[in-house]
Amino acid sequence: MYEGIVQDLIDELGRLPGVGPKSAQRIAFHLLQAEPEDVRRLAEVLIQVKQRVKFCTVCFNVSEEEQCRICRDPRRDPSVICVVEEYKDVAAIERTREFKGRYHVLGGAISPIDGIGPDQLRIRELIMRLADGTVQEVILATDPNLEGEATATFLTRNLKPLGLRVTRLASGLPVGGDLEYADEVTLGRAFAGRRSADG
Amino acid sequence: MYEGIVQDLIDELGRLPGVGPKSAQRIAFHLLQAEPEDVRRLAEVLIQVKQRVKFCTVCFNVSEEEQCRICRDPRRDPSVICVVEEYKDVAAIERTREFKGRYHVLGGAISPIDGIGPDQLRIRELIMRLADGTVQEVILATDPNLEGEATATFLTRNLKPLGLRVTRLASGLPVGGDLEYADEVTLGRAFAGRRSADG
Repeated sequence: MYEGIVQDLIDELGRLPGVGPKSAQRIAFHLLQAEPEDVRRLAEVLIQVKQRVKFCTVCFNVSEEEQCRICRDPRRDPSVICVVEEYKDVAAIERTREFKGRYHVLGGAISPIDGIGPDQLRIRELIMRLADGTVQEVILATDPNLEGEATATFLTRNLKPLGLRVTRLASGLPVGGDLEYADEVTLGRAFAGRRSADG
Repeated sequence: MYEGIVQDLIDELGRLPGVGPKSAQRIAFHLLQAEPEDVRRLAEVLIQVKQRVKFCTVCFNVSEEEQCRICRDPRRDPSVICVVEEYKDVAAIERTREFKGRYHVLGGAISPIDGIGPDQLRIRELIMRLADGTVQEVILATDPNLEGEATATFLTRNLKPLGLRVTRLASGLPVGGDLEYADEVTLGRAFAGRRSADG
């Protein structure tokens, strides 16, 4: 539809997740009218991010240093490790401000259909982190879906014999949700996990 | 939430139109995991687009050359000019494949509240294009809103005395729309513009 480079830009933008052809065109036109300096800064950040971002050698979170900000922070409790599938899960948990321990990013979940078994995940690295006895509790925060549950089950079986406390995030009704619209599995879990009402 | 450059990338992406904080994060993580080559190509296109894209000296459409693809195309009828507000309107009309003439991009619409009068638009350039007598018809395809109508009225008043045919895109019910949900102005226009039913 457009000439050369404008169409190239629309095509490249359209490859980004969640950006359809209409959005790609809108963003492209915005960039055409934007200050050259602003567009150059975006291009520069794109290049820099690929050059500078590494993965933490301890927990495999994204990091610009050998170790990520959380692993470097002496105030974070080294006796609790929260195991997540992806580094975006770290951000989600950090936003709650509920967790003061460290993380371990598996890099996915067990999914035989996608050819992902325990060896494709950073499970060996997790077990090595537990060797020196510092860690007392491992919280399994994999996704509450088939693959996440399979991964949690596998980890539980392998970590329990090490004499650690192994826990799993609670399943139940989402806060602000509507009981009427909860699916039966969630509602069933909410019943099974019911607690004594206080207050 | 994230360290340095990753947060910078999320911030830059979040400045794009239609990209909220969640989308910005999703796109950023996608780019972190993408091939360095793919990200470099996007960055390169961003830089190139600002360097290479100019505006057609005849119609002010986007172009990589002195004149845009449409103005350079000898098969496009030079006797009809379709006047639009923005160059994205050119793309919208081109997609219909209904129009075989040339364009003129005004660069906006008359809007006193935003300080945009006729002098801020490329109206003088339009009138200069009409001087040699080639153009027989000017189709006003400004937006069907207050500013677009004001601009069309202004242009009609200034072009009619030149002895040209000046037309306006039809207003009426959108195809595939629901009569019941049409606003009264649109429905009123559809009545006023009714045509004899054939077939």
